[in-house]
Amino acid sequence: MEEEIRKDFMELLTYMEEGKHQEFKKKAQECLPVDIAEGLEEVEDSSKVIKLFRMLPKDIASDVFSYMTSEQQQLIAESATNAELKALVDDMYMDDAVDFLEEMPANVVKKVLQNADETTRATINQLLNYPENSAGSLMTTEYVDLHDYFTVRKAMDYIRRTGIDKETVYTCFVIDDQRHLVGQVSLRKLIIAPESTTIRDIMDTNIVSATTTDDQEAVADDFRRYDLTSIAVCDKEMRLVGIITIDDIVDVIQEENTEDIKKMAAIIPGDEDYLKTSVMNLVTHRLPWLLLLMISATFTSTIITHFEELLAGAVVLTAFIPMLMDSAGNSGSQTSVTVIRNMALGEVELRDWLRVLWKEMRVAVISGFALAAVNFLRMIVFTNAGVMISATVSVTLLCTVIIAMAVGCLLPMGAKRVGLDPAVMASPMITTIVDACSLVIYFMIASAMLGL
Amino acid sequence: MEEEIRKDFMELLTYMEEGKHQEFKKKAQECLPVDIAEGLEEVEDSSKVIKLFRMLPKDIASDVFSYMTSEQQQLIAESATNAELKALVDDMYMDDAVDFLEEMPANVVKKVLQNADETTRATINQLLNYPENSAGSLMTTEYVDLHDYFTVRKAMDYIRRTGIDKETVYTCFVIDDQRHLVGQVSLRKLIIAPESTTIRDIMDTNIVSATTTDDQEAVADDFRRYDLTSIAVCDKEMRLVGIITIDDIVDVIQEENTEDIKKMAAIIPGDEDYLKTSVMNLVTHRLPWLLLLMISATFTSTIITHFEELLAGAVVLTAFIPMLMDSAGNSGSQTSVTVIRNMALGEVELRDWLRVLWKEMRVAVISGFALAAVNFLRMIVFTNAGVMISATVSVTLLCTVIIAMAVGCLLPMGAKRVGLDPAVMASPMITTIVDACSLVIYFMIASAMLGL
Repeated sequence: MEEEIRKDFMELLTYMEEGKHQEFKKKAQECLPVDIAEGLEEVEDSSKVIKLFRMLPKDIASDVFSYMTSEQQQLIAESATNAELKALVDDMYMDDAVDFLEEMPANVVKKVLQNADETTRATINQLLNYPENSAGSLMTTEYVDLHDYFTVRKAMDYIRRTGIDKETVYTCFVIDDQRHLVGQVSLRKLIIAPESTTIRDIMDTNIVSATTTDDQEAVADDFRRYDLTSIAVCDKEMRLVGIITIDDIVDVIQEENTEDIKKMAAIIPGDEDYLKTSVMNLVTHRLPWLLLLMISATFTSTIITHFEELLAGAVVLTAFIPMLMDSAGNSGSQTSVTVIRNMALGEVELRDWLRVLWKEMRVAVISGFALAAVNFLRMIVFTNAGVMISATVSVTLLCTVIIAMAVGCLLPMGAKRVGLDPAVMASPMITTIVDACSLVIYFMIASAMLGL
Repeated sequence: MEEEIRKDFMELLTYMEEGKHQEFKKKAQECLPVDIAEGLEEVEDSSKVIKLFRMLPKDIASDVFSYMTSEQQQLIAESATNAELKALVDDMYMDDAVDFLEEMPANVVKKVLQNADETTRATINQLLNYPENSAGSLMTTEYVDLHDYFTVRKAMDYIRRTGIDKETVYTCFVIDDQRHLVGQVSLRKLIIAPESTTIRDIMDTNIVSATTTDDQEAVADDFRRYDLTSIAVCDKEMRLVGIITIDDIVDVIQEENTEDIKKMAAIIPGDEDYLKTSVMNLVTHRLPWLLLLMISATFTSTIITHFEELLAGAVVLTAFIPMLMDSAGNSGSQTSVTVIRNMALGEVELRDWLRVLWKEMRVAVISGFALAAVNFLRMIVFTNAGVMISATVSVTLLCTVIIAMAVGCLLPMGAKRVGLDPAVMASPMITTIVDACSLVIYFMIASAMLGL
């Protein structure tokens, strides 16, 4: 499949280079815009990129442009004539135009805005002003708005006349004279209803909508929960100002997942493409956490130094420190990731904390006993540590697993309770905390059991 | 918002208990089906659940049913009369019916199939036979199929007549006389086109489709890549057999993310609801990894035992083992998670491995030097370890960070290369491997620098 896409693009490139306009146009129509954009990404020669883009049929050029990388978009925008740029921006959906402009340097933004007509310019400026990750910054203004007193016939005429430029015509939003959102009606209902019916009589008034300041994650949750394909976005006075469609929400869901995964691995999230991110940029997203965790881990050195005499008396104890710490870290991170993920998906709420803790504690006791038993047998059979040392290590293992799972469960929920992001309380943080606990427990149990 | 939903449901419950049928019906129409289903989840008394469900207006009952938990679905199915069950299943979309039946015990499945009409029964049986997580198991059979020789008028008539029962009417699939998929046409195009146009002349032949055996993850990737809202599913002979819609894909995307996140935390993925999963079930998903990792970690004990004499000569070295291991583990997991996620999103391919390694190595050297420098200063200022010990620990830190990032980058890519799931090569596995490396490096550097 992927090979086929590559082959198609290479053909396109060849037709361009050989000046075969007819064949080029035909082939371009057969390719999907995103595939052309991805093919272009691998073309290093910028004059070729510009030339190929200019040869694209008008009707797909703006689609291809929407999928291109910011670098190549900038290239095209800078080399385009004013008229070309105007045509391009007019053809793009507003949300794509805004996504594009957000990444452009000031001179390109200025050039685009100067060439847009007045309404487009006003809309773009307005959309650019919404805070990042808000519903406002995600929405587009190309929606079908119907008045509740329209008949179905009038509505269908209106859709036929204007629908070609709308991001979706399948859900139409119904407004009153002050543009307040009063309902929505699906195209499915419209085509089935008798032509003389009034929109008011068939519209759905019981609808889910968003406001411009809503966080995109909350909007994505509504899409998931209610199986939406589009949602109306209103301002504070409940006036309809835009819509968000499912294609953008799918991207939001992936972004939010990537963000959570990065946080869980102690990486500060950024949204650049990995292969295009500079080394220094990667370092700035990782080093702060590494430093913080390293400094926190020095606490473990203090503990070991504190018990130095005990260790000098039984150096063999040292040999089991890494295994104890790893097992504690792994069980803690299993629990914390489970809790974090379930909270993110809304499966677990804060008020469930006692149920979660109770469940995790039972898991911890069973897992802890199993691990301790296996470890005890292993030490007796394969090492010459002796019964008392083996028992010390195994009892410590049981205790640390229980503590690790308790910490792994309580810390993310506690973080959420005080308004922090629970995802930060995942394995690296938990490991550091749990390591210190394991050491203290280990040495206390050792001194008690071995009489050191 | 959530409070409001709860309040609405409580009102519904009250109307039911007071026998106010009129008010109940009105309120039920105002609630969204998923909200009613979630409200029902918290009703403990099963006779109340059944009673409330039976009172629901016919047109929303099957929607509510689709969103209910398997336990409550079973309750309803068992208490329903044959006629009720037939009506319920006839009203459900095939994919929802199949999802429901997959979770039911044999007697319920039998009861449902006995009461379904012959075509429904055949379709359900066919869908139940597709392997889990395949496109076939995800698809539904309620789609609009048009022949390429239809006129737009005929197509619209057909949609108006049959569209009410279709999962989507917004993309219509075009077939030839042998039911081979030959194209698709959007409802948007149909309503704009002149009524006498032939479908053949306006249909899109350049379309993305899936086959029944495709993995659901690959289908989800196509939805993301091409911004689809539905996709045609064909059998091996390219005959159209079903469609998949975006609402199910959104669930697939979340499921796949959850699965990856669990794997990265050394949990064997399962798809039960956390709060409803039994403790033993949780244990079986976590203990195997904990045991495996614990056994692997005993390798570190062997290393320490091997260097026991060296350690006895400088017990102070022990104090820095946890910090070194944690830092190595954290940097390794940062890299591995970055690589795993980028591979999952298709941003990084296997053939990029040298570029990735080169980038990560530069990140590692810079991060490693920074960590080592900070650590050296800290040890000199805050501990009495002395210059040589501090230097030993810091040089080890630099080396382990480099090795950890190399392992964190190469292991997931290597796993993918040999056909394993890269997500398994995340922090727990990396930590265990990198711990052993760090110890060996530590002791080698110590014996070289300290002359032990």
